[in-house]
Amino acid sequence: MNMDAKKQAPVSRATLGRLPDYLNYLRSLPEEQGPCENISAASIAKDLCLGEVQVRKDLSAISAPGRPRIGFNRRELINSLEAALCTTSGSRAALAGAGKLGAALLGFDGFSAYGLEIAAAFDNDPAKQNLQISGKTVYSSEELAPYVRKQNIHIGIIAVPKDQAQSVCDQMIEGGITAIWNFVPVSLEVPENIIVRQENLALSLAHLSSHVRAE
Amino acid sequence: MNMDAKKQAPVSRATLGRLPDYLNYLRSLPEEQGPCENISAASIAKDLCLGEVQVRKDLSAISAPGRPRIGFNRRELINSLEAALCTTSGSRAALAGAGKLGAALLGFDGFSAYGLEIAAAFDNDPAKQNLQISGKTVYSSEELAPYVRKQNIHIGIIAVPKDQAQSVCDQMIEGGITAIWNFVPVSLEVPENIIVRQENLALSLAHLSSHVRAE
Repeated sequence: MNMDAKKQAPVSRATLGRLPDYLNYLRSLPEEQGPCENISAASIAKDLCLGEVQVRKDLSAISAPGRPRIGFNRRELINSLEAALCTTSGSRAALAGAGKLGAALLGFDGFSAYGLEIAAAFDNDPAKQNLQISGKTVYSSEELAPYVRKQNIHIGIIAVPKDQAQSVCDQMIEGGITAIWNFVPVSLEVPENIIVRQENLALSLAHLSSHVRAE
Repeated sequence: MNMDAKKQAPVSRATLGRLPDYLNYLRSLPEEQGPCENISAASIAKDLCLGEVQVRKDLSAISAPGRPRIGFNRRELINSLEAALCTTSGSRAALAGAGKLGAALLGFDGFSAYGLEIAAAFDNDPAKQNLQISGKTVYSSEELAPYVRKQNIHIGIIAVPKDQAQSVCDQMIEGGITAIWNFVPVSLEVPENIIVRQENLALSLAHLSSHVRAE
């Protein structure tokens, strides 16, 4: 990643989590004042029950700062939020593994709020190939690398059995995937420029459980 | 939570994530030296490619500290790890929602490394009731509160449609659940003594995606 490109630095997970709330809120306001309508960080904070400092910090991560005594232009701020959330251009991901977890991810309706979509799934079980799951086609695993390359997809999701995770990961990278969301509890070996987010559902439940036992 | 009980404080998520590795490693060592066998933090660190300071810190969170020049008794350390991971006593959870995500969680085989088990699922769709999914029975939602109370289950997992999440949460608390793992993107209203871990899969993918776009 280019360390000089500070303005393009990814926003924090916490900020990112609040961006859909800002966007929904701004869109929900009645359009009374035309294109010049402004809104202050203070009034956003009040209506969303957030701290004003937090609102300013969140919005400064994705937009030009509000002007003193004027605030933000509502339309411009909506545009900035849409751009940050990519809800207009959209990001697509390829899913490896159309088992139970894969099917759950294909059917998950929360991705669209972030402009995200799983474009297709890939599985090496011939019985699953060419099936439609939640409207998405399951292709043969062999088609993974050529598909993502042709479709210019850079995000891969891995939900295959343990012993297939590394080879699927290698195929994704071969196809041009640069960010991998890995649901399999194995440590993937990847080149330095590839980002891996390890999803450990068991650990999440174990951590919650440890709080119960500590009470 | 009792703030005086420092020794029982939950270990950090990062430490917890490494505990199964320590346990697997210690169990895999040949038993050559009988019950008095000792092992140093340095040699554990070396074999697991971890920092020695980190190993000491991790192990001190769940065990008495190693003795100078002697280290840890291997058997005692295994016992401490098993107790911390609850692999001997086990923790059970109740799952609300036997849709695609619920079915994926029921079939997920990673929980056992932490001594965790989903005991049963509950769904208000009569077509799903009394089905077996990955060997677990799906009961009617009405049975949730009495079941968890009778079975002394304190962990609940919510994977129901959005508009049912709060009422399911209320039923769980009524049944004595004190920790909730919520996969539904709604903010649950709970009493102060209830722990909620909000799982936001869309946000996880969005955060990964934002890194790709920032490159």
